[in-house]
Amino acid sequence: MCGIFGIYSHKDAANITYLGLYALQHRGQESAGIACLDGDSAHFHKQMGLVSDVFTADVLKALKGILAVGHVRYSTAGSSDLKNSQPIVVEYMKGYLALVHNGNLTNARIVRDELRDSGSIFQTTTDTEVIVHLMARSREKTTIDRLIAALHIVEGSYSLILLTQNELIAARDPYGIRPLCLGRLRDSYVISSESCAFDLIEAEFLREIEPGEVLVISERGLQSLFPFKRMTRKHCIFEYIYFARPDSFMFGRTVYTIRKAFGRELAKRDSIDADMVIPIPDSGIGAAIGYSQASGIPFELGLIRNHYVGRTFIEPEPSIRHFGVKLKHNAIHDLVKGKRLVVIDDSIVRATTSRKIISMLRYYGAKEIHFRVSSPPTKYPCFYGIDTPTRKQLIASSHTVDEIKSYMKCDSLRYLTVEDMKNAIEGDYTFCDACFTGDYFIPFPKSMDMEQMELFSNDY
Amino acid sequence: MCGIFGIYSHKDAANITYLGLYALQHRGQESAGIACLDGDSAHFHKQMGLVSDVFTADVLKALKGILAVGHVRYSTAGSSDLKNSQPIVVEYMKGYLALVHNGNLTNARIVRDELRDSGSIFQTTTDTEVIVHLMARSREKTTIDRLIAALHIVEGSYSLILLTQNELIAARDPYGIRPLCLGRLRDSYVISSESCAFDLIEAEFLREIEPGEVLVISERGLQSLFPFKRMTRKHCIFEYIYFARPDSFMFGRTVYTIRKAFGRELAKRDSIDADMVIPIPDSGIGAAIGYSQASGIPFELGLIRNHYVGRTFIEPEPSIRHFGVKLKHNAIHDLVKGKRLVVIDDSIVRATTSRKIISMLRYYGAKEIHFRVSSPPTKYPCFYGIDTPTRKQLIASSHTVDEIKSYMKCDSLRYLTVEDMKNAIEGDYTFCDACFTGDYFIPFPKSMDMEQMELFSNDY
Amino acid sequence: MCGIFGIYSHKDAANITYLGLYALQHRGQESAGIACLDGDSAHFHKQMGLVSDVFTADVLKALKGILAVGHVRYSTAGSSDLKNSQPIVVEYMKGYLALVHNGNLTNARIVRDELRDSGSIFQTTTDTEVIVHLMARSREKTTIDRLIAALHIVEGSYSLILLTQNELIAARDPYGIRPLCLGRLRDSYVISSESCAFDLIEAEFLREIEPGEVLVISERGLQSLFPFKRMTRKHCIFEYIYFARPDSFMFGRTVYTIRKAFGRELAKRDSIDADMVIPIPDSGIGAAIGYSQASGIPFELGLIRNHYVGRTFIEPEPSIRHFGVKLKHNAIHDLVKGKRLVVIDDSIVRATTSRKIISMLRYYGAKEIHFRVSSPPTKYPCFYGIDTPTRKQLIASSHTVDEIKSYMKCDSLRYLTVEDMKNAIEGDYTFCDACFTGDYFIPFPKSMDMEQMELFSNDY
Amino acid sequence: MCGIFGIYSHKDAANITYLGLYALQHRGQESAGIACLDGDSAHFHKQMGLVSDVFTADVLKALKGILAVGHVRYSTAGSSDLKNSQPIVVEYMKGYLALVHNGNLTNARIVRDELRDSGSIFQTTTDTEVIVHLMARSREKTTIDRLIAALHIVEGSYSLILLTQNELIAARDPYGIRPLCLGRLRDSYVISSESCAFDLIEAEFLREIEPGEVLVISERGLQSLFPFKRMTRKHCIFEYIYFARPDSFMFGRTVYTIRKAFGRELAKRDSIDADMVIPIPDSGIGAAIGYSQASGIPFELGLIRNHYVGRTFIEPEPSIRHFGVKLKHNAIHDLVKGKRLVVIDDSIVRATTSRKIISMLRYYGAKEIHFRVSSPPTKYPCFYGIDTPTRKQLIASSHTVDEIKSYMKCDSLRYLTVEDMKNAIEGDYTFCDACFTGDYFIPFPKSMDMEQMELFSNDY
Repeated sequence: MCGIFGIYSHKDAANITYLGLYALQHRGQESAGIACLDGDSAHFHKQMGLVSDVFTADVLKALKGILAVGHVRYSTAGSSDLKNSQPIVVEYMKGYLALVHNGNLTNARIVRDELRDSGSIFQTTTDTEVIVHLMARSREKTTIDRLIAALHIVEGSYSLILLTQNELIAARDPYGIRPLCLGRLRDSYVISSESCAFDLIEAEFLREIEPGEVLVISERGLQSLFPFKRMTRKHCIFEYIYFARPDSFMFGRTVYTIRKAFGRELAKRDSIDADMVIPIPDSGIGAAIGYSQASGIPFELGLIRNHYVGRTFIEPEPSIRHFGVKLKHNAIHDLVKGKRLVVIDDSIVRATTSRKIISMLRYYGAKEIHFRVSSPPTKYPCFYGIDTPTRKQLIASSHTVDEIKSYMKCDSLRYLTVEDMKNAIEGDYTFCDACFTGDYFIPFPKSMDMEQMELFSNDY
Repeated sequence: MCGIFGIYSHKDAANITYLGLYALQHRGQESAGIACLDGDSAHFHKQMGLVSDVFTADVLKALKGILAVGHVRYSTAGSSDLKNSQPIVVEYMKGYLALVHNGNLTNARIVRDELRDSGSIFQTTTDTEVIVHLMARSREKTTIDRLIAALHIVEGSYSLILLTQNELIAARDPYGIRPLCLGRLRDSYVISSESCAFDLIEAEFLREIEPGEVLVISERGLQSLFPFKRMTRKHCIFEYIYFARPDSFMFGRTVYTIRKAFGRELAKRDSIDADMVIPIPDSGIGAAIGYSQASGIPFELGLIRNHYVGRTFIEPEPSIRHFGVKLKHNAIHDLVKGKRLVVIDDSIVRATTSRKIISMLRYYGAKEIHFRVSSPPTKYPCFYGIDTPTRKQLIASSHTVDEIKSYMKCDSLRYLTVEDMKNAIEGDYTFCDACFTGDYFIPFPKSMDMEQMELFSNDY
Repeated sequence: MCGIFGIYSHKDAANITYLGLYALQHRGQESAGIACLDGDSAHFHKQMGLVSDVFTADVLKALKGILAVGHVRYSTAGSSDLKNSQPIVVEYMKGYLALVHNGNLTNARIVRDELRDSGSIFQTTTDTEVIVHLMARSREKTTIDRLIAALHIVEGSYSLILLTQNELIAARDPYGIRPLCLGRLRDSYVISSESCAFDLIEAEFLREIEPGEVLVISERGLQSLFPFKRMTRKHCIFEYIYFARPDSFMFGRTVYTIRKAFGRELAKRDSIDADMVIPIPDSGIGAAIGYSQASGIPFELGLIRNHYVGRTFIEPEPSIRHFGVKLKHNAIHDLVKGKRLVVIDDSIVRATTSRKIISMLRYYGAKEIHFRVSSPPTKYPCFYGIDTPTRKQLIASSHTVDEIKSYMKCDSLRYLTVEDMKNAIEGDYTFCDACFTGDYFIPFPKSMDMEQMELFSNDY
Repeated sequence: MCGIFGIYSHKDAANITYLGLYALQHRGQESAGIACLDGDSAHFHKQMGLVSDVFTADVLKALKGILAVGHVRYSTAGSSDLKNSQPIVVEYMKGYLALVHNGNLTNARIVRDELRDSGSIFQTTTDTEVIVHLMARSREKTTIDRLIAALHIVEGSYSLILLTQNELIAARDPYGIRPLCLGRLRDSYVISSESCAFDLIEAEFLREIEPGEVLVISERGLQSLFPFKRMTRKHCIFEYIYFARPDSFMFGRTVYTIRKAFGRELAKRDSIDADMVIPIPDSGIGAAIGYSQASGIPFELGLIRNHYVGRTFIEPEPSIRHFGVKLKHNAIHDLVKGKRLVVIDDSIVRATTSRKIISMLRYYGAKEIHFRVSSPPTKYPCFYGIDTPTRKQLIASSHTVDEIKSYMKCDSLRYLTVEDMKNAIEGDYTFCDACFTGDYFIPFPKSMDMEQMELFSNDY
């Protein structure tokens, strides 16, 4: 997963982008980068690590220019490596381009092979690089037409920001899978994956970029194009469930509100008798509050999260190894001792962490543990940008709820149903839920099946 | 403030200490250090930074030995500098000593001057260094008698762990101001500032070190001495209010439970009509849950905390400066818009942060903001180890609650009373609350008054 | 300028390359890089800095594979930046390519513009990148034919090593401008810019790669191709004068021997009466020994060079600034006091350093200073890989010897004549001496003149 | 070995000291440090590494004050560790002291034990720390009297600079074993181990500090005290042979001149017939020039030294290990092939390096190798500050010249005799030559013999 940010015409463009990325840090902790185009020259800096470690005052000062784009990355396509970090900055026609991308192009492997065989040179292993190559190979005259031509060829999900010497172009795939929104900071325009970045820099939220929209920001102001065939909206439901920050406004709603609604729906069909509702922090908190409010069972912050987990944490010696889960979470003994608990998590992937937390709660004396999941069983891999494991590793793809319950050793286990998930979201249901239903609305390229997609989607 | 940890007789002593410090990281983020005594030699490593940054696998491997002590530091006495980080390791008589200390010695300046004038050389500016000098100057024969002699001379607060070539000695001042507890990890003994460190390493909590106790752990097992005049217990109430981790068991209770009780007491005398209770995370969460449960007003996590604040965060340019509070906290617009809020914080120091949060909530459309503080007004500086600002900077020392309310621009402001604080803690009230009452039970050295104490207590 | 190294089929390929680059460090101190191709995958590491700082044991261990190429760089074409460091590693057809290059392609700007306009994307600003793009665009079938096709298009100087999944290919331009030689290390073949790298790894020197030769090393052994029109040899005379290490065997001779011969020729026409001959270390030493032996005037190491000049040396405050030359060189007072000196340097570029050294020698009491230069006046910029300043900055391009003497404030100044330089090199004279004569044997591209060449040759 | 530098009253004191240390870098590459006293506060920075790596512009800027001392260290006493780096900065009486020391105190172990047993705390393992403890324990009133009292107790060698809040004090042991000199930089005074540091900063050399002199620089100008019993001068002859920079003026002569004289004396008794004289660079160059001039055999720089040896150079894999000597030195094949060589080194310690160089020269075809050493056989360890190995490792302490010749595999081997060494130094012979003669003029403490001295002198 990734977070992207861009700004048009601000004298502190790199500094503002730094703050924007900082607010988007939850979307990717692996690498961070900023590029500025400044007249005829391009300045950029990208490095493995957190935003606050990657950029120093000296580095920011060297990123001159009034136009900037930035990127934080948690790899989906392309291995975890400095060369795959973004922005991608290239020399192209008479000037430079800088591109940042959130999403995953499903036909990247095929397009890449064709480009390579006809003489294009690839220097990264990301899907994103194909876009600039397609632009370079296009016969169109203007940058904007070349971009549109390129986007007509790629399939999959993309929210992207492209910087030229004098324009900032934002584009979103016709399904609107990944989020992207537009704001104004006094006389400047800003683009961000999530609105929480606007709050930090005190920019005004204007609107979301529309699915299929290509928005050009230049001297002449805003120009909005819709060059693609209109498609049914397919926003990523997992942004609501887990990925986005609760204070972001996305796909027309506030994330926190939706998470509470998931918890409330979960409680509606539940008649469990329990002493307290406990979230697995931080992602389970919203749903747990909703569940508590709907059920009347008191909410308690019975699990504590340690936020000092550094990137360089040293694996303890094998003899003292088994602390994995405790490095991140601990429970409050007195609170859970002898109590009947409803424990809420946003989703279950492999179920190994949940199992360890349950074991810890039992050790501290919990009497009953009723595990509730504020999303349906995750059965299918995501090919549109969420870094889920392969199908084999998704416990729900091969086990029944009852089998999962036995593995996790909880007293009861319930998931939110797809139906209730839809109910929770008031208004039209315009979401991609392929991870729960297997309903992949973008056809797999050529004769690929799901196994091949899994094989190729994360490894170029 | 500081956190300390020690282990007696474990083949992975340094590794276990690393994990222990990691669990105590909230007690000090400025520097971290570990010392191991291994036969005739001493190995130690200390550095500015977080535990997970200071120690690498190579560094830990070089810390050989089965006895270890560790320290995390947030400076109270002595400037923020590598030379002031702990453990203090010195050559002394026939071997080495390693010492870690949490607390503040009120007569350190005077003792230090006397020692210096009679020929002792100081290489740090910490109060802790006087203890080893007093031990070295003592005429007693054994290390333990020398330590006791030294502790008879110093005044103030101390929880400390002293490592010799073959003993681990834990000591706590006669008032029991700072916490310290004893645990067992299979055949080894462990000492820690807080019990949450035992949970992480899966050690069994045995008991707290008693006020005035000197506990010697050696080949002959545990030996418990009480060489000091028995004093009234004076546990630091601020550990409960703010400092300790909620999952720690301390001074006979669980911190989370006490915090909830503070919130409950606060609600009892409050008859405010509001739509929701919102904590300032993370420290206000416990009290907010208690307030919500007692008042029936729904609890909401309406303020989001960004945990990626790095140590190297770059101050934005002056032109884009005023984001201070937003770097750490943001509010959920939709949730607070048009609503009457009870906002709960654990304490108010300068009131500048609270004021900014209130202004942000107003900007997002909150209708009423009722600010509640789960502790009494902080009017007096702490001389026993909490790094409070000087009296002049404590807004409550010179302003009435009404004046503070006006400054903060909230609709109403209420603090917990000292009486209700006492009520919240069931059982005997055995706490130091000098920060609220000015009741300093340890006489100031010689003819010093409070201004002089402030002058000297944080600057050697 | 750059140094390149490659090895075919050695289990410690990266380690050997590290040592090879270490021996070639004098050819470039700006960045260093090594790439290994290992079956289907490529591993590489490149970074700004010296070889011994760029590579750690961990980094070397991760560079798996039995084929490796390495590069040290001092920028000529392309700005000084990590993205411009080599090896260039790209995905190409069915596998990876890694390329290292020493030299300068005179028509790179034009070829690059054409490639870019037809859809190639450039990610560096080096001339080297055009070679891989030309290969990728070629219609030839095999890698080797594509390389040859690409080299038919580029003009200028190149000694290069290309690594494919199973071949190591070395190529040298038809003029043989830059050096490149072949060695054997037991069962492996090695390629290096200079033979001194073979000495360090105890490889056997076999021969120099011929001008215009393309040498393919593969499972089938060595295959030598000569696909280009045979040209007059034009070895770079400046390698002898300044650049190469004195212990290297290059262009059929040993560099140290040639330098001494330059000094001897210089002495032959000189009848100066002096007390001692002093070189400007290190580059003037060979010529000074030759001059001393021919003239009978004693050789003295009267100037001492400080070798600890770090990359991060801090510029002193303006108030104490003027130490520039002394940071690198100091003179022995007693030795030079009251003496008549012959001071020998290898060449004069701007004359500012020479002027400062002369001033220092005068300050220490030298009676007469006769400056001798073991090469002719440097009047013209180099477009074939030596990083000379532009013509305006070359003092000899606009001033007579007499004017230079006045500027430097020496008692006499003499250069080696082009004629004597030719005499010094016994056997056929097969050298490029355009920097002295302006005789550029490769036509400037299209309608460019020297000013335009200067403008473009160092800045893409 | 160490280098020390100090400056009294200069607004750029830290910057000048940085430059001074840079010029003294050859005296110690392990750690570097600078301390400034500025009114009531002390600022210092010390770190493992080279001067140019240890200090950044920011670090230097923070070192405020007009008085400064600096130190570069190559450990003799005390293990190689940051805590042992200098300056030692301590709080003492009413202010701070900063001390730098070059030399070795022979009775440090004993004095240290006594101090420790009476209550002093040691935080380093250096001999230098005893001086500040002795000062602190002294009953004298003034700092200067306390220093003199301390120096009356210690034995061995010392050149030191002591900084107080308003004085700079330089002292040299009564034998004058280590060098120390005084210079003037406009209105400021400077003190340095060697005069080459004065050249770099363009200070005027005034004179050497006298043996037994304590020189106080303060507001009242210079005050020179001679509080110790006058002893025979015993300057370290090894400074001339190897340690000092050739451009330094020391013990009344210029080092380069003495080295040439050593070479000349060596040649006088030699009637070898050879083709060339080759130094082992850099330390053998002076003697080789002297030998060549006296013998008429041509001087050639036949061995090349690689100056890029970094501190972090990675040991090659065992399979490719044996390059040790070649990393530092290579020979010019053509030059030595078939030739009869006189190879000159300054001294022989273990003879392993010399042996490898001889083997390399033979491999390149040298016909005869006559090894000449410009000092007598090194038979005894130094207890006065040079970091020689223990007696067992000194090949000359247990082998005859003939046996050493056989080990090294040279055709002949000759050392300079003690007699000729004395002849080479014109004027009075006032030198410590204990490393050659075993004539230790300072009695070993109490009942220690040489083995015990070796045991203790380098390990506290």
